[in-house]
Amino acid sequence: MSIATALDAIALLLGERLSRSKSELTAHGRSESYFPLTPPDAVAYPESTEEVQALVAICAEHGCPVTGWGAGTSLEGHGLAVRGGVVVDFTRMNKVLEIRPTDMDVTVQPGVTREALNEELRATGLFFPVDPGANASLGGMAMTRASGTTTVRYGTMRDNVLGLQVVLADGRVIRTGTRARKSAAGYDLTALMVGSEGTLGLVTELTLRLYGVPEATSAGICAFPDMGSAVTAVMEVIQMGIPMARIEFVDDATARAFTAYSGMEMAEAPHLLVEFHGSPESVAQDAERFGEIVADHGASPFRWSAREEERRALWALRHNGYYAILAARKGSRAVVTDMCVPISQLARAVEETQADIAASGIPGPILGHVGDGNFHAVLLVDPEQPAELETAKRLSHRMAERALALGGTCTGEHGVGQGKMGFMEAEHGAGWDVMGEIKRALDPQGLMNPGKLVRQG
Amino acid sequence: MSIATALDAIALLLGERLSRSKSELTAHGRSESYFPLTPPDAVAYPESTEEVQALVAICAEHGCPVTGWGAGTSLEGHGLAVRGGVVVDFTRMNKVLEIRPTDMDVTVQPGVTREALNEELRATGLFFPVDPGANASLGGMAMTRASGTTTVRYGTMRDNVLGLQVVLADGRVIRTGTRARKSAAGYDLTALMVGSEGTLGLVTELTLRLYGVPEATSAGICAFPDMGSAVTAVMEVIQMGIPMARIEFVDDATARAFTAYSGMEMAEAPHLLVEFHGSPESVAQDAERFGEIVADHGASPFRWSAREEERRALWALRHNGYYAILAARKGSRAVVTDMCVPISQLARAVEETQADIAASGIPGPILGHVGDGNFHAVLLVDPEQPAELETAKRLSHRMAERALALGGTCTGEHGVGQGKMGFMEAEHGAGWDVMGEIKRALDPQGLMNPGKLVRQG
Ligand SMILES: Cc1cc2nc3c(=O)[nH]c(=O)nc-3n(C[C@H](O)[C@H](O)[C@H](O)COP(=O)(O)OP(=O)(O)OC[C@H]3O[C@@H](n4cnc5c(N)ncnc54)[C@H](O)[C@@H]3O)c2cc1C
Ligand SMILES: Cc1cc2nc3c(=O)[nH]c(=O)nc-3n(C[C@H](O)[C@H](O)[C@H](O)COP(=O)(O)OP(=O)(O)OC[C@H]3O[C@@H](n4cnc5c(N)ncnc54)[C@H](O)[C@@H]3O)c2cc1C
Repeated sequence: MSIATALDAIALLLGERLSRSKSELTAHGRSESYFPLTPPDAVAYPESTEEVQALVAICAEHGCPVTGWGAGTSLEGHGLAVRGGVVVDFTRMNKVLEIRPTDMDVTVQPGVTREALNEELRATGLFFPVDPGANASLGGMAMTRASGTTTVRYGTMRDNVLGLQVVLADGRVIRTGTRARKSAAGYDLTALMVGSEGTLGLVTELTLRLYGVPEATSAGICAFPDMGSAVTAVMEVIQMGIPMARIEFVDDATARAFTAYSGMEMAEAPHLLVEFHGSPESVAQDAERFGEIVADHGASPFRWSAREEERRALWALRHNGYYAILAARKGSRAVVTDMCVPISQLARAVEETQADIAASGIPGPILGHVGDGNFHAVLLVDPEQPAELETAKRLSHRMAERALALGGTCTGEHGVGQGKMGFMEAEHGAGWDVMGEIKRALDPQGLMNPGKLVRQG
Repeated sequence: MSIATALDAIALLLGERLSRSKSELTAHGRSESYFPLTPPDAVAYPESTEEVQALVAICAEHGCPVTGWGAGTSLEGHGLAVRGGVVVDFTRMNKVLEIRPTDMDVTVQPGVTREALNEELRATGLFFPVDPGANASLGGMAMTRASGTTTVRYGTMRDNVLGLQVVLADGRVIRTGTRARKSAAGYDLTALMVGSEGTLGLVTELTLRLYGVPEATSAGICAFPDMGSAVTAVMEVIQMGIPMARIEFVDDATARAFTAYSGMEMAEAPHLLVEFHGSPESVAQDAERFGEIVADHGASPFRWSAREEERRALWALRHNGYYAILAARKGSRAVVTDMCVPISQLARAVEETQADIAASGIPGPILGHVGDGNFHAVLLVDPEQPAELETAKRLSHRMAERALALGGTCTGEHGVGQGKMGFMEAEHGAGWDVMGEIKRALDPQGLMNPGKLVRQG
């Protein structure tokens, strides 16, 4: 068997760092979401670009599928080796290689997590802003084009990856981008790789933009009488140009789950959680102006603070949101939807979605990065009841269609993986074929994370 | 001849809007730069996507090269039909299709110029920020990944194109991107197309991000004792996080050319021209803080104003910069270099470049978007003296090598066209081969703007 031959050769290369133990295979066959257990044939732990290159060359020779693995937090079954082969776990490539304060950039190995990076940056007064909530790896975040709570101000991985080192399907190593802030030198291979979910190659190094830690930060929370007024307030705040660093929406069901999970008391109502970055004066001013605008929309008094502890408590609440929601229905698995629409369509999108969920009989709390027009319904299904999974998938399908009808996308930040394959044709039309043509040009054997993103032949 | 057959078929399609008149061919065989006259076989003026599609399908059938044409202001001979065929001039596709103020975006045809767009936007309180100086077309700007004076604040075309409609080499029409602010739905075809210089398809529609016209704007200018202190001041201002909307450097030779061209008196010294966007208070504060920092670096008092007239005069000076420099040597043509380096390397890059130019005997005033680490030497050559062109090209080559050695790029914003082909291998290594593989996958006959960007077989 060609996979077996490849694994023997990789074992020679990596020794004990190629594992075929059941527990390892199981750990790399699970996802954070509803996909069935899909263990690979082996798990590799390379420690250098050279090892990754040698490994990929072996796989190319023997026709063995290769799938990258960062922190395994992606939500659409991205990292599951659906055609078997080797999963390449980047945990051991976790060094921050060089921090350049004057240029405000950093070069890291792909296994560095965003929290570890920010820990290392602490002394420099700089930080890396992209924050998907989970403590994901930077390689995984680049590959899913992750974004999150701070994207409204600092952008997504698309905006914050300056360059990559990538091992291609045939074992060639390329460097994309430069450390210059911009370039017009040919096709933007960095942008092509960011969001490619490991289907075009394995990332072995990333150069990222950094930002100065703001002099001051303020953050706060307020409740709304209904979802419509919360979303309308968001639109108005954006129109007024108030510079938000974070603006998160949670609906009443999510607020209830938060209260149950954290013990922190929250009204069972839609809320906005907001943060401002700037000078001590500007963040106070921004918070005041924000409070005035939301008051016009019937919000409760905007309680805000510039104190670190209180801010941390607020964002811990939000970061645990997914788990708080999961805990709201014991033993459930989640189908997480990820609509992103133009801001003008946001109220309508959330309203229709909420009604649709209510009619379905499945719990589906909603929360989201509303400053980007992006929100999630976390559809909670009982894994013992296949009919529920079917209902959730139908709901999810209608949401994706709704997103497209409103000029948006079926996935704002989670990516395609396995779960969104069914919407790619509707979203991209012939553009999806073009993606397949690019995939075939760079990976003619179809060995890099096969079964994902492009149309399956 | 296959080109001739194609042109006959296109003439049937477009009637008088396919021109073979000598004056038309000559006008579309010239570039703004030093490249020799290269007239195409015909010039087409389509008026709709359907016409472009039909035209490209004809060209595909008969093997006729197709090259797009916006405003013809690109500087590397991008739009010259080096293998003949038809040039597609987008002047008649110049409609602003839809402005959506709430979503702060706009959909335009490719022939709309940036000035025309901002004129149309005037009543909305919104503007499109990317400003390459020349009144370029938005299609051309997307295709060269243009940027300019405001990029330090608002980004390049990469950051400001949300989506495209593209006619591919085989006549398929695709839409890339959506109107959502972000998406993780597969390969980023928008980013792949932006900067592709028409080698992957013709753009027939663009959706662009807009920004609120700032409440207040201040702008000013100051002179420095030497180039080093000007550039060091820029680095410091960036480190301090002062939010500049524009920061432009001109060296002493450029200042002299400006004085001669405009009559406005400027000291023969390096200068910085700066602009701030914000509230009336913040732009005044920013200007004051900026003035303090540059004073520490020996600058002349920072003269600034929030009055529109004075700002306009300042930026007219800068926008005419290229022509002012050309006028400094009568009858000359320009070889324009376009280094972009990490900010920490900027002073060294400019210094070494200046010394190199001084030793060459060719005039080469320097100016640039220093906030991005990007600057241009405008090397003035006498077209009657081929030895001068050779010297300029050697200088240009050394600058590109210097940019790469310092971690930067050979072209920050002008693009590859014909002029930078010789540096692609050094800048991208095997990445340049990958570009060629993508090109062949999407344009196997090599008909879209042939002879540019990718390695020529
Ligand atoms: C509680 C929770 C909250 C979340 N919130 C957000 C959110 O707000 N925004 C958001 O964007 N996402 C969110 N996610 C999803 C997830 O965190 C992101 O998708 C993240 O980017 C995944 O990173 P990872 O390191 O876990 O990647 P993995 O899941 O390990 O891998 C993701 C994909 O990248 C590939 N890959 C990984 N490393 C490499 C490499 N070095 N080279 C090539 N391919 C590689 C894998 O094959 C896979 O296809 C959330 C997830 C959870 C569990
Ligand atoms: C005085 C002056 C100052 C300049 N300053 C700057 C600057 O600061 N920053 C900067 O980035 N550039 C600058 N430039 C260069 C130039 O303005 C830019 O490259 C601009 O983006 C070119 O736009 P255009 O409409 O003139 O394109 P063109 O020159 O007509 O075409 C550019 C390329 O795009 C292709 N193309 C055009 N339209 C389409 C289409 N619809 N579909 C497919 N392909 C198409 C052409 O084939 C060609 O390859 C300057 C030029 C001048 C003369």
